[in-house]
Amino acid sequence: MIRILGIDPGTINLGYGVVEVDAGMKALDFGVIHVASGIRIEKRLKYLYEKINDVILKSNPDEVAIEQLFVGKNAKSAFAIGAAQTVAVLAVVNNGLPVYYYSPNMIKQHVTSYGHSDKKQVQEMVRIHLGLLESPEPNDAADALATAICHINCSRFNRWVSERV
Amino acid sequence: MIRILGIDPGTINLGYGVVEVDAGMKALDFGVIHVASGIRIEKRLKYLYEKINDVILKSNPDEVAIEQLFVGKNAKSAFAIGAAQTVAVLAVVNNGLPVYYYSPNMIKQHVTSYGHSDKKQVQEMVRIHLGLLESPEPNDAADALATAICHINCSRFNRWVSERV
Repeated sequence: MIRILGIDPGTINLGYGVVEVDAGMKALDFGVIHVASGIRIEKRLKYLYEKINDVILKSNPDEVAIEQLFVGKNAKSAFAIGAAQTVAVLAVVNNGLPVYYYSPNMIKQHVTSYGHSDKKQVQEMVRIHLGLLESPEPNDAADALATAICHINCSRFNRWVSERV
Repeated sequence: MIRILGIDPGTINLGYGVVEVDAGMKALDFGVIHVASGIRIEKRLKYLYEKINDVILKSNPDEVAIEQLFVGKNAKSAFAIGAAQTVAVLAVVNNGLPVYYYSPNMIKQHVTSYGHSDKKQVQEMVRIHLGLLESPEPNDAADALATAICHINCSRFNRWVSERV
């Protein structure tokens, strides 16, 4: 049994979703951290860091998957990521957890088998993957769950390959 | 007596400088945190966070001044700052310290009386302000000291105004 925390690090709403994998996949928790605008930036960063920390402590994941806009070439320049992503990555590594990055297209590909699917399709496929009765809301939480599902499927595929080579 | 930590949050070299103010200004410490390239981003962020934390604990400042490329209009959108700045701000606020932002032009203006001075002029004026025998090296450390000096002069001016209105 393994537990994955997925994070969709938006600038105003940061989505998170916790998926447990056994024989199947199960959503343990999902939601959104809303960062109020109109307050000083250092307060926003501190608030975001503390709330992500709370989610990590509460959900106790084994691995964390983060949706990242810039992977591949841009990721090499290493600092070309947004503040919300930076805060999320810091909170994760300061808790000693491994972190994995997936591009939006890769996440869509793994969840809906199509890299350019829309928000509604992603929500509906996340619902089906996790056996939920209703589509997970809001969108940012669904995207975070999709990121966790993407990581689970990628890891499974990687294990499948490594057992055969 | 008040102690100011100035930070110039570059992406590869983060400059820092500690200035103590009494009757005059004195440089207590300055240097650069070098973030190695070619390692995974989360390791770089964690390393940077820990090193900034070490500088804060060692220098024990009362206030922190950070050079920020985007102030004013862009600062309001709050997340339009780089990863190094984000890490620096987080390390500062997680230590419960107040943080102040200054644009590069404002720093140059306060240190050299000219907003578009070059690196050499800034280094030389920092040397004179702090009574150093030699120009502080490297550039990023001099910029961090300049940021601290800018904050000291701004605070002094603000106090002067508030005592008269």
